[in-house]
Amino acid sequence: MSPAATSRAATPAYRRLSVEQRRSQLLDSALTLFAHRAPEDVSLDDVAEAAGVSRPLVYRYFPGGKQQLYEAALRTAADALEQCFDEPPHGPLTARLSRALTRYLAFVDEHDTGFSALLQGGSVVSTSRTSAIVDEVRAVAAARILAHLPVTDPGPRLGLMVRTWISAVEAASLIWLDEEKRPPLDELRDWLLDHFLAMTTATAASDPQTAEVLRAALEMETADGVAGSLARRVLPVVSDAAHLL
Amino acid sequence: MSPAATSRAATPAYRRLSVEQRRSQLLDSALTLFAHRAPEDVSLDDVAEAAGVSRPLVYRYFPGGKQQLYEAALRTAADALEQCFDEPPHGPLTARLSRALTRYLAFVDEHDTGFSALLQGGSVVSTSRTSAIVDEVRAVAAARILAHLPVTDPGPRLGLMVRTWISAVEAASLIWLDEEKRPPLDELRDWLLDHFLAMTTATAASDPQTAEVLRAALEMETADGVAGSLARRVLPVVSDAAHLL
Repeated sequence: MSPAATSRAATPAYRRLSVEQRRSQLLDSALTLFAHRAPEDVSLDDVAEAAGVSRPLVYRYFPGGKQQLYEAALRTAADALEQCFDEPPHGPLTARLSRALTRYLAFVDEHDTGFSALLQGGSVVSTSRTSAIVDEVRAVAAARILAHLPVTDPGPRLGLMVRTWISAVEAASLIWLDEEKRPPLDELRDWLLDHFLAMTTATAASDPQTAEVLRAALEMETADGVAGSLARRVLPVVSDAAHLL
Repeated sequence: MSPAATSRAATPAYRRLSVEQRRSQLLDSALTLFAHRAPEDVSLDDVAEAAGVSRPLVYRYFPGGKQQLYEAALRTAADALEQCFDEPPHGPLTARLSRALTRYLAFVDEHDTGFSALLQGGSVVSTSRTSAIVDEVRAVAAARILAHLPVTDPGPRLGLMVRTWISAVEAASLIWLDEEKRPPLDELRDWLLDHFLAMTTATAASDPQTAEVLRAALEMETADGVAGSLARRVLPVVSDAAHLL
């Protein structure tokens, strides 16, 4: 065997990746680690080991160390999360929302510890930059929902309602993780959909724009869909409240 | 004038306070500053100046510097916030909730910048200790609401609903601050009350315990109260949705 061949054989397999591939591989490893451990429990050694590379190589790609790696992994996660909200504008609104929520909650399920650490704050790697990325995801989610309603110029009530519901989804996701992922994900999703309809209805009660949006949305809903199911289940619950009318 | 008299006259007025009074005065000054400025824009010199004392005196009471002062001020704020939820168990549920919300929102209004900085995270003084204090306030609010429902052993759905609504109130408060405090506080409060009723109704649709709580609560509501007003405003909005039943 020639010295050149020996050298090639001794070259670790990871040298064959391009810069972009290597960076992406390191980010994947980091995101997997940050997804299931608190940021303070992830070291650069862990990332190097998970990626099958040396610590200096991780530093070559991320000279800012753990903080830079965390922020880059968060950027990757934010992009993935924003893709959850991509949904064609066809069919009943609640069916679209249900598909987007299913993808979002699957993301929460897959990145449980990291999701909690990120949103609960107080973590060693929380900075104004990480907060800005989280806010960006919220803003994208709000814009997508408004586009589906469809509304281009939301008044303050409708904007407040959509942003508040998104926060409620986040909060419920955190509580769900905290409660050892009970109830099952599809029950949580269905409850969040019911919540969306109820909140929209309550907002429509005092805001003409939301009322118009709700009427148009309900026209497209079917009796066997989310709105029909909620309507039939709500009626018996409020049937004793005739004294309020 | 004797030397002793001169010495007394030169003694700054603040020396007359007891240790507890001094500590409390420094905390008041700190809380006022932290309420209206981002934590990074408050220095110990500012606190000393606002309290009319020297910087070393501030350090004597808070040897941990700004971080310790911030956490102590936050503790004071948390205690004040928890008092907002004190409400006697009489009258319609929504009237009690309305009074508690009025106090809570007045607190948000009075501590605007600090409230945002605290809850939006990424601040220089955010730690796991500050997060724990915020979580404690949320837990107290949830326990108070459950006590008013009244429920001693909440199932997972009811617990999730109450905690999610509290998060929605927080989120709406932050959005309200971000939107230059529009709409007026009483409109925000009324919307949050409508939201509570709507969310309870939607949860009652799939949870027997919540349904029981809602029925009992609605029995005590009157036509001229929050629930009556919401019921009359919702009916016309959903009147076109008979195809869902």
